[in-house]
Amino acid sequence: MNAEIITIGTELILGQITDTNFAYIAERLAEAGINLYYKTSVGDNEKRILETLKLALSRSDAVIITGGLGPTVDDVTRTVLVKALNLKLVLNEHVLKYLQNYFEQRKIKMSQNNVSQALVPNGATIVENKNGTAPGLIIPYGKKYVIVLPGVPREMKPMLTETVIPFLKTTFVVEGVIKSRVLKTFGLGESRVDELIGDLFRLSENPTIALLASSTEVKVRLTARAKNESEAETLLSGLEIKIRERLDMNIFAVDDETMEKNVGMLLTMQGLTLATAESCTGGLVASKITDVPGSSKYFIHGVVCYSNESKINSLGVKQLTLDMHGAVSKQVAEEMAEGIMRRTGAHLGLGITGIAGPGGATETKPVGLVYIALAADSELISREYLFSGSRLQIKERASQSALDLIRRFLLKI
Amino acid sequence: MNAEIITIGTELILGQITDTNFAYIAERLAEAGINLYYKTSVGDNEKRILETLKLALSRSDAVIITGGLGPTVDDVTRTVLVKALNLKLVLNEHVLKYLQNYFEQRKIKMSQNNVSQALVPNGATIVENKNGTAPGLIIPYGKKYVIVLPGVPREMKPMLTETVIPFLKTTFVVEGVIKSRVLKTFGLGESRVDELIGDLFRLSENPTIALLASSTEVKVRLTARAKNESEAETLLSGLEIKIRERLDMNIFAVDDETMEKNVGMLLTMQGLTLATAESCTGGLVASKITDVPGSSKYFIHGVVCYSNESKINSLGVKQLTLDMHGAVSKQVAEEMAEGIMRRTGAHLGLGITGIAGPGGATETKPVGLVYIALAADSELISREYLFSGSRLQIKERASQSALDLIRRFLLKI
Repeated sequence: MNAEIITIGTELILGQITDTNFAYIAERLAEAGINLYYKTSVGDNEKRILETLKLALSRSDAVIITGGLGPTVDDVTRTVLVKALNLKLVLNEHVLKYLQNYFEQRKIKMSQNNVSQALVPNGATIVENKNGTAPGLIIPYGKKYVIVLPGVPREMKPMLTETVIPFLKTTFVVEGVIKSRVLKTFGLGESRVDELIGDLFRLSENPTIALLASSTEVKVRLTARAKNESEAETLLSGLEIKIRERLDMNIFAVDDETMEKNVGMLLTMQGLTLATAESCTGGLVASKITDVPGSSKYFIHGVVCYSNESKINSLGVKQLTLDMHGAVSKQVAEEMAEGIMRRTGAHLGLGITGIAGPGGATETKPVGLVYIALAADSELISREYLFSGSRLQIKERASQSALDLIRRFLLKI
Repeated sequence: MNAEIITIGTELILGQITDTNFAYIAERLAEAGINLYYKTSVGDNEKRILETLKLALSRSDAVIITGGLGPTVDDVTRTVLVKALNLKLVLNEHVLKYLQNYFEQRKIKMSQNNVSQALVPNGATIVENKNGTAPGLIIPYGKKYVIVLPGVPREMKPMLTETVIPFLKTTFVVEGVIKSRVLKTFGLGESRVDELIGDLFRLSENPTIALLASSTEVKVRLTARAKNESEAETLLSGLEIKIRERLDMNIFAVDDETMEKNVGMLLTMQGLTLATAESCTGGLVASKITDVPGSSKYFIHGVVCYSNESKINSLGVKQLTLDMHGAVSKQVAEEMAEGIMRRTGAHLGLGITGIAGPGGATETKPVGLVYIALAADSELISREYLFSGSRLQIKERASQSALDLIRRFLLKI
């Protein structure tokens, strides 16, 4: 069986919003082992939606449509559907009741336009929408199906995963599943990762391997095709072990895990606490650390000190050090790390100083120069970095590097 | 004239990457007044690319294709093109030389696969790629054009704006332009914005008005169609004035401006400095403020204090206040704001305390309860909020609310 996606909306075709539904639906279909061959986007135009739908029905077993289900005159999906499939719109009492409840609960007067959302093509099965007013529809067409979902991602997603995907899997004989796993690496360039695992890369046909480089990490994506989920997982795990042998502690997270989550886990496991002193990252490291639920257990205190004065007053950085080496120096980063550790009583102290740009560079110190230091009871590590990119990219790269420095330190003790 | 987009890539159709090229190209076409009617995505499959291209050529004047131009066997776009258009691939010496230079400069050995990127359909005009190896192509087909660009956004974007759009505008008689302007509001719900400007909304045909609500703001998007850019700007400005009369200081930014940028501008204009004391937002406010270049001029110092101890030691919050009202209270937020202002000598002090969740709620204090206080020389403002959503959403909403509190305070003095 093969599926096809149509996303409808003039705001898509004008580039006013990015079509994130496409990737979400595509990934869910791939996981379910359903082939997706085409995806088309059109504006809220009856003629062009009709043409697109007819073509899709001529070549695909299931057509998933999102958008154009709203209550306004722009939203023409329902009208086109009944034309294309030779159906009629009939008032669905169940949907009408749901809508009446929806508005009553919110103490909003239900408009006549909203009543139109209870008009449903005859023969359609309703897909309940828990987060909005437009119901989803599953409409049989010969041996094929047209599935219509609202365009709002928050409404569409649960309807797809809870109802539509299970429906497709039971209705069609689906031949297998496609599962992916992403190993996120930090500290190696794309070409270095390619050197280290290039042979696996070229030899492995199932799972396949793809590299995706972004500004702060290189992702290794493994994609397995198998009869069922557990076979796919076995294939993925087998290859993951081989890749881990090569990339080792450069892999900092799997799938949706983050660097800060794993740093938090390591701190918790070792019963250690952390305090941060940030200059050029401006609080971004503290903010990332506190994105993790329960971080209050190991994150004691953070300071953002842009000025020399605040480095002296709140961290005990020496005026002499500032005079001799400048605020952006290895020595100041180290005094910041030790200062915040001592003053807060944390086990680990982090110090970051650098030039995020676009201003602030000197003859000897360019934009992107960053020093990061990590102080522990009996150790003091510091590193010099030169990051490229915009101010926000430099902040991001410096923050990830700082977290990675902590992560590697915790893995070694 | 009308255009059509085809994006090619198996990673798109598997949902492994989000197709951001689509919205980017669509927006540039709209600005240039070029109608876009269809956008199709297909995998790296010759048969399906061919079918999609033929359909596109039957109904559109210009077909813009991205992706599938890489050096590997997967990248079949060139092969399909010559089939569909009855052309031949010929070695382009200019492109070959460019590729040789590209690899020489990077001290990488050029592979035979890369030589294939210099094979170009006869009759094609080359679009120079300053950021990669795959050249773009403009290929005439009767009175129509097929335009092929690489799929990597960083490579595609300058090629589109610097070469392709100007080419289309001079080649076809384009009837006008479409320009948008986005007014970002904070502090009003979508339905309240609709109440305030609903009549303009429904009466105004050019520019049209659309509301886009996200978790922290409601955007009012004005879209004007006009003969040329300056007429469009006049139409947009005329309507903007009317909307500003109604929404007033709830509008915090226009287009790509951010809340933190405008707060920084107001602080700079008034010669004031700021220091922050954050608990539940964990440094996110400081990080946002320091995202703005030059923020070191007005942002003096920030503190992230999760524990009671650090609230007492670094801000001078009273033990008695903590005991009587709890760490998450109006009183503690106020003492944090005053404490950080006094200790740093800043003109303004911000204090934030709350429960970001998912844990930490008590019988009387739910997740999402946040207190924000702003201290100035002779004033002390504080607000209670109850935010919904995930930990990250609560952090984000609290941070934006804090910045908005500062913004409104600065607008009034």
